Amino acid sequence: MTASPFDHPFLAGLLGDDEIASYFSAEADIRAMLSFEAALAKAEAAHGLVPGEAARRITDTCVAFSPDVSGLRSATARDGVVVPDLVKQLRAAVGEEAAKSLHLGATSQDVIDTSLMIRLKAVTFLFAGRLSTIAAGLYALDHKFGHNRLMGHTRMQPAIPITVCDRLNAWRAPLAIYRDRLTEQSFPVQFGGAAGTLDKLGPQAAAVRASLAQELGLTDAPQWQSGRLPIADIAGLFSSISGSLGKMGQDIALLAQAGNEIEIAGGGTSSAMVHKQNPVSAEVLVSLARFNATALSGIHQSLVHEQERSGAAWTLEWLLLPQMTMATAASLRLAGELAGNIKRLGTA
Amino acid sequence: MTASPFDHPFLAGLLGDDEIASYFSAEADIRAMLSFEAALAKAEAAHGLVPGEAARRITDTCVAFSPDVSGLRSATARDGVVVPDLVKQLRAAVGEEAAKSLHLGATSQDVIDTSLMIRLKAVTFLFAGRLSTIAAGLYALDHKFGHNRLMGHTRMQPAIPITVCDRLNAWRAPLAIYRDRLTEQSFPVQFGGAAGTLDKLGPQAAAVRASLAQELGLTDAPQWQSGRLPIADIAGLFSSISGSLGKMGQDIALLAQAGNEIEIAGGGTSSAMVHKQNPVSAEVLVSLARFNATALSGIHQSLVHEQERSGAAWTLEWLLLPQMTMATAASLRLAGELAGNIKRLGTA
Amino acid sequence: MTASPFDHPFLAGLLGDDEIASYFSAEADIRAMLSFEAALAKAEAAHGLVPGEAARRITDTCVAFSPDVSGLRSATARDGVVVPDLVKQLRAAVGEEAAKSLHLGATSQDVIDTSLMIRLKAVTFLFAGRLSTIAAGLYALDHKFGHNRLMGHTRMQPAIPITVCDRLNAWRAPLAIYRDRLTEQSFPVQFGGAAGTLDKLGPQAAAVRASLAQELGLTDAPQWQSGRLPIADIAGLFSSISGSLGKMGQDIALLAQAGNEIEIAGGGTSSAMVHKQNPVSAEVLVSLARFNATALSGIHQSLVHEQERSGAAWTLEWLLLPQMTMATAASLRLAGELAGNIKRLGTA
Amino acid sequence: MTASPFDHPFLAGLLGDDEIASYFSAEADIRAMLSFEAALAKAEAAHGLVPGEAARRITDTCVAFSPDVSGLRSATARDGVVVPDLVKQLRAAVGEEAAKSLHLGATSQDVIDTSLMIRLKAVTFLFAGRLSTIAAGLYALDHKFGHNRLMGHTRMQPAIPITVCDRLNAWRAPLAIYRDRLTEQSFPVQFGGAAGTLDKLGPQAAAVRASLAQELGLTDAPQWQSGRLPIADIAGLFSSISGSLGKMGQDIALLAQAGNEIEIAGGGTSSAMVHKQNPVSAEVLVSLARFNATALSGIHQSLVHEQERSGAAWTLEWLLLPQMTMATAASLRLAGELAGNIKRLGTA
Repeated sequence: MTASPFDHPFLAGLLGDDEIASYFSAEADIRAMLSFEAALAKAEAAHGLVPGEAARRITDTCVAFSPDVSGLRSATARDGVVVPDLVKQLRAAVGEEAAKSLHLGATSQDVIDTSLMIRLKAVTFLFAGRLSTIAAGLYALDHKFGHNRLMGHTRMQPAIPITVCDRLNAWRAPLAIYRDRLTEQSFPVQFGGAAGTLDKLGPQAAAVRASLAQELGLTDAPQWQSGRLPIADIAGLFSSISGSLGKMGQDIALLAQAGNEIEIAGGGTSSAMVHKQNPVSAEVLVSLARFNATALSGIHQSLVHEQERSGAAWTLEWLLLPQMTMATAASLRLAGELAGNIKRLGTA
Repeated sequence: MTASPFDHPFLAGLLGDDEIASYFSAEADIRAMLSFEAALAKAEAAHGLVPGEAARRITDTCVAFSPDVSGLRSATARDGVVVPDLVKQLRAAVGEEAAKSLHLGATSQDVIDTSLMIRLKAVTFLFAGRLSTIAAGLYALDHKFGHNRLMGHTRMQPAIPITVCDRLNAWRAPLAIYRDRLTEQSFPVQFGGAAGTLDKLGPQAAAVRASLAQELGLTDAPQWQSGRLPIADIAGLFSSISGSLGKMGQDIALLAQAGNEIEIAGGGTSSAMVHKQNPVSAEVLVSLARFNATALSGIHQSLVHEQERSGAAWTLEWLLLPQMTMATAASLRLAGELAGNIKRLGTA
Repeated sequence: MTASPFDHPFLAGLLGDDEIASYFSAEADIRAMLSFEAALAKAEAAHGLVPGEAARRITDTCVAFSPDVSGLRSATARDGVVVPDLVKQLRAAVGEEAAKSLHLGATSQDVIDTSLMIRLKAVTFLFAGRLSTIAAGLYALDHKFGHNRLMGHTRMQPAIPITVCDRLNAWRAPLAIYRDRLTEQSFPVQFGGAAGTLDKLGPQAAAVRASLAQELGLTDAPQWQSGRLPIADIAGLFSSISGSLGKMGQDIALLAQAGNEIEIAGGGTSSAMVHKQNPVSAEVLVSLARFNATALSGIHQSLVHEQERSGAAWTLEWLLLPQMTMATAASLRLAGELAGNIKRLGTA
Repeated sequence: MTASPFDHPFLAGLLGDDEIASYFSAEADIRAMLSFEAALAKAEAAHGLVPGEAARRITDTCVAFSPDVSGLRSATARDGVVVPDLVKQLRAAVGEEAAKSLHLGATSQDVIDTSLMIRLKAVTFLFAGRLSTIAAGLYALDHKFGHNRLMGHTRMQPAIPITVCDRLNAWRAPLAIYRDRLTEQSFPVQFGGAAGTLDKLGPQAAAVRASLAQELGLTDAPQWQSGRLPIADIAGLFSSISGSLGKMGQDIALLAQAGNEIEIAGGGTSSAMVHKQNPVSAEVLVSLARFNATALSGIHQSLVHEQERSGAAWTLEWLLLPQMTMATAASLRLAGELAGNIKRLGTA
């Protein structure tokens, strides 16, 4: 057991997800934060708040900029956020003149929350695709085995016979809902400045924010720096997804235990018993569901986000939401693989 | 400290809510379960599955029926659910002939989950009204004090001056979203029979379910007995509401501590210090937010609802969702009172 | 589903516990709070802080006093705690002279927390006895079936054969630990006055507190009004107990599903299927375990108990700890019943 | 926001801990797993179960062995645990003859749980030292400022004046308890074989286990593979520690907000406001407390550990306990730094 299960030399084979991890690395975060600064300069130039030349200099620099990470690290230890030092490094890189036009009217939270939204938007698009893959896998099982008989179980007891199709419907029904929700989920830009009032931008504040949102492909919305419903919504959706997949995993593990109504390929081997075929993916779906159910509580605790910005509540999100994203990614990956590995379901 | 804080001889003055409690009493539950049985008989008669005469007999009986509660209690201890004994008592009451037409094709979960939805629908209507009351209270404060100056705080430090209006906007913004969500929330009938397949109703199953839903004023939907997303959605919404109100409570408690930017009437007295005016409602908003954030985790754990019905996961919902409803009710009540008790906000 | 599952006209048959509920009723709380006031007067008289006559008057009154509960209710709504009004009513009852000697140097938290400890002490004694009952039940099963063969399962798959004795040992091992911990658990008096410094009692503060503790049969300890480790410890112990019993419940439910290695009497009946024998108690053990695991999180959140007394963190405890106690009580009761209902375990 | 906050290029400056991280890296885990295999071979040789020559070959190999990590990764994806492939690689390294003596009678869980205990034991020793550092820092503050006046606050309101010493006592009291608990905490070896019965070791099973425990400096105890109280105990202790430090953090953040009763050096800078000195460490102590309070719930969920080994419950621990350890480490580090950074407390 080690500190970073989702981003780990060997555990990540089981619990990680290479594709999604690439959006939740420090590098990806820096990349997205730089794209915020570039887009902000561009938007402010468009509205005449900074010189076009400075904005060009900033955007050019942001594309290629590679910060001194050890400097970021010690500054984050002091400031509680990476942004002041990142901006300082970036100011040095763009030169004295353009430096005045960098990060104008913005605050750390604008950069960090918007970076998160940029990456969550990309990730949920991929999640929607994975839900389709799982649904397709379940349709394929339905096509092959839907008419097979399965013993329906209620309260851990055989109830009455159902069909494989009935059980597959129970697994499939929420997936379509989740796909719709992921697709309709809005990802708002965060832009509020020091205390949420965009005090430095004057009457053009709203217009700059709208341009910034458009530039970044995000939804324009008033600042939500102390109103964390967007975070709670996404966390709730992720936990619902992994929860429903956890139900599928639990069902499959119970089928595997009973033994006669399912055949799965690719089960795990044991260091002590060569005869075993462990339903590893099915079990891990349960673990990931319970992990997200656990973490969701902390996200809702952080709705109690005092005043104009709470260091305590905000940092708590950092500890939870990215990992919930990774857990959901692993859950979707494993569920897709598991659906593909089911070689028989029910009895003819 | 006692076992039933929301339904309690004296604590309920603080933590309870008389209006909403009346929907979450045992009596209200029985009443709603009886209305399910009556509506089912009526729907099945309409589709020719039971004699009209029997349905009339059942609906007439259900209106006035008062079960032997001590019998229900010992039967619930044995069966894990109240329904088998309630139906048995009801069968005796309707007479041998109509008894055959009672509860036809239904199972315990259909009765209990549908009773819950009937009452949640009524309750969320009231919640939407309360959100309007709070919003109106905040508008009134804005009208009176919106232009007052307030020190903006970030990371527990004075940041820059904002206006009272800025702070009120942060409190108000999520409320409009919640009101819309409460209004749009669907409350699905649960009707699946022994294992979710409505096996006893044949080709008319779907039509009976649609009629049943219509009769009860609920949304028609396929059974969700092992797919508990409707429960998770409502719990998530409730926890979001109390979370945002908890943020308002925390802000007000912090203002009350600083002392110079707020005046509140109706604060609590102390048994040790006569000079104190404790911001009790503001604090309790935080407690209720954290309670719901805690409980939400258990609701998401119960998404891992194995097979066609899980006694374990379902019973866990019983322990949590009604109390989340009561906590949300108390939170809405207290927030409305608190908004009304603010006598000054900010400095001119 | 209704608001008070543990204290409920019919659900309490399943989820409640009459014996323990009697310690967590409003009446029991009032009784214990009155015993605090009586013991405090007595202790303060013993140390010459109040007249012996006044103390006698107070103790005599406390024995029989029955407060106006509707008055307590409205006062609790205002004050956030019941104590100021309870003391006010009690002052009226003891008369003007003795009134000055009542509640001297104490604060609401002293009364409420000490009332809790008095009752938790009684309850944990009963819990220890129940653990012995369960252990005896498991020993009896071991005596009868210990040599029977049981298929060992790992990762939801048959592993290698074990004996019934092996499985029983896994269930039994933690129970002995819990019994010791319950027996050794200390229940500290809470006595700190307005801000934890017993400022009104002068140099005799510690001596009065020691006498008070002795009078009430509690452990003498410095005030813990903002240091809630005693609460977290008890909550953790309760959740561990129900967790281990939940493991036993889950094991039994899985045995019941497989069907051939266990026979249980007294299973639940179904409203839809007459042939079923549901392992209701086993399932509910899992529900109660997950309930306590959920609630424990809120108790640990309330360790962040700011300053000398946090209304928010303290009220959160009220919403959780008594219910954790009831859940543990139900868990212990059901586990004892379940052990007695197992008619066969394993195969000869 | 990124996936591995505790082990992160720049966030770890704030949330990580280099010293403790070195015990919770993949490398440290592998090192400890290899020391298990070496100690097992040695213990089994001492009891005549394997040839001394083979044991020597195994222990020599384990000292220097560096596994093919990419092989471990793909095997973990399949098996759900790293051990089967690690043992396979190690068997190849020790040669055919000694291979028969490697991992004899052990199972994956023995290796992974024991590796955890080896590292937790080392870590808790360091934690006890850090608690002493914090206590010393608080004593130093007491020495300097103990007699200063501080306004006592209850329910977010000024109550009565207390001394700085009173407040420091509230912070310090639990730390001594935690140090004792860390020191007394037992770290049991896990050794049960395929299904907890050490079936392959015959009558010498207990003696081998005792030797193994001694070799590794752990407590000898019967297997606890499905009885996860040792995990729950440690997690509860860690969460209590960070909870009490979170209370201290919250208090300091509130003092910093009020402004006149505290001076702190080393506060964080802001990207938007040069005048601010944010109490970053104090806030992060609150975040870490709430993180652990959240995660603890999942650890208690995993007490429902079915049968002889639950893949689902066990994997859930992997996702939570190491991070709880890191959060506790960061909490202890930050609290020590913060105590040292307080330049004034209270008013003379």
